[in-house]
Amino acid sequence: MINKLVIIGVGLIGGSFALALRKAGKVKHIVGVGRSRENMQRALKRGAIDEISADLPSALKHADVVLLATPVGQLGGIMAQISPYLEPGTIVTDAGSTKQDVVTAARSHLAGHLKNFVPAHPVAGAELSGASAADAGLYQGKNLVLTPLDETSAEAVKRVTELWQACGAHVSQMSAARHDKILAAVSHLPHVLAFLLMNHVSSSTGHDSSEPLGPDDPLHFAGSGFRDFTRIAGSSPEMWRDICLANREALSRQIDAYQKQLTALREMLARDDSKALERVFASAREARQRWLENRS
Amino acid sequence: MINKLVIIGVGLIGGSFALALRKAGKVKHIVGVGRSRENMQRALKRGAIDEISADLPSALKHADVVLLATPVGQLGGIMAQISPYLEPGTIVTDAGSTKQDVVTAARSHLAGHLKNFVPAHPVAGAELSGASAADAGLYQGKNLVLTPLDETSAEAVKRVTELWQACGAHVSQMSAARHDKILAAVSHLPHVLAFLLMNHVSSSTGHDSSEPLGPDDPLHFAGSGFRDFTRIAGSSPEMWRDICLANREALSRQIDAYQKQLTALREMLARDDSKALERVFASAREARQRWLENRS
Repeated sequence: MINKLVIIGVGLIGGSFALALRKAGKVKHIVGVGRSRENMQRALKRGAIDEISADLPSALKHADVVLLATPVGQLGGIMAQISPYLEPGTIVTDAGSTKQDVVTAARSHLAGHLKNFVPAHPVAGAELSGASAADAGLYQGKNLVLTPLDETSAEAVKRVTELWQACGAHVSQMSAARHDKILAAVSHLPHVLAFLLMNHVSSSTGHDSSEPLGPDDPLHFAGSGFRDFTRIAGSSPEMWRDICLANREALSRQIDAYQKQLTALREMLARDDSKALERVFASAREARQRWLENRS
Repeated sequence: MINKLVIIGVGLIGGSFALALRKAGKVKHIVGVGRSRENMQRALKRGAIDEISADLPSALKHADVVLLATPVGQLGGIMAQISPYLEPGTIVTDAGSTKQDVVTAARSHLAGHLKNFVPAHPVAGAELSGASAADAGLYQGKNLVLTPLDETSAEAVKRVTELWQACGAHVSQMSAARHDKILAAVSHLPHVLAFLLMNHVSSSTGHDSSEPLGPDDPLHFAGSGFRDFTRIAGSSPEMWRDICLANREALSRQIDAYQKQLTALREMLARDDSKALERVFASAREARQRWLENRS
């Protein structure tokens, strides 16, 4: 049980964490800090938070745990703001989608507090955002990756682990570098591919947004496969700008490797290599079936 | 109402056509022709067909409509086989995912029958296949594209239109070249991208298929976005080999254009161009929202 939890940024991620912990009976009092008055009021109304605070010093007073759940690009600035008011025993954790940049920011701005800093990433996304999209069940059965620093204490890791487990998440640990490499492959690259496909198809149409789609528009013929493929292209542009820049080295390597595969397939088409094409598609289908069967 | 419908290839596509027409009360007798005895028995049991025929001459006798619903790669051979037995009044149509190759095959193998040949493509896919996956509602609200030849009679187009409308499909017409260009963008390219992503991620893992996925495997951290993005990578390798080869010119052009976008984004990352990245992602999200809102 924690007495006082402070959530900075009460959107989908922070709000769902609050609702899940409350449902699990793991927290007494939740203070929300955020820029949008309207969003904070919604968080209050939904019962995600007990109190809206516009004053960091009083918000952080006697806090047991502080969750930083703003977009990744703002984390450094937030750390600098909270650092003067953090009490030594307060555990600070985050929910950023990239981890090396968060660790770097913490080394700059939370240098005296690293023992109690636990970088974390709940691998649960949605195209929705804001407190109104928050959901106590968002983390149920999802992965939560901790990337503790050498300085992070075992006790702080244990407490953050317990909180996420109370939200229903499967908690694992790895280095920040390994996290960023894996996420570049399974999340950041697919998002980039989906955003680009959506642009690629819609830019070729010359579609006037005030007109309903007609048979003159290629998008008129896009079906459920296209809809599912591009679902992640409905995600927040600001958030994905930040993620791509924060993880640009690993992501760039993934793009390069992927482009090589695309070029190889292009060559199979050019030389009419039906066997090679079928092998590519069959191994992909097998890999996907294996993945679906083995998913824990 | 048609008296005798012959379906060659009673899988998901042919079987669903049969079930939908029967439900709509548009057909008296349906004859199925297919290579897999087991699949044909399932089609019979499900009531998709009334009769299994292993003898083309008698199957085609007095047929009103023949639907060719085999994989695209087999259509030329099937046309050559049925051509000697086709009666002049029998309408022949197909359900192939590409149309220029089907038109070329028809010009070779159904040269005397082009007046009654109506190339068609129901834009409705599923990863499932076989008669057991057939569904009377598969075409409800889906697009059906006809790409009639200059030789195709208005009467034949009208009859095929009515049949697909009875299945619940929205029927439109365009040239085979335009169809193939549009489908390369909204369907064939996304399938290729999904197959390649699945391979890209799974090949980098060195995952032993006999072991359950653990936190050492990147795929362990793939979430619902990845699942939806790669759904179409569960599609039939043989079918997609045929489609990619049948439409390789249009598809190659799409791959080239898409590679350019990927390269441009790679350069935005390299020069840390946060504004350009956000613009790319925002325009994709807007295009997708517009598409979802305007979808008829």
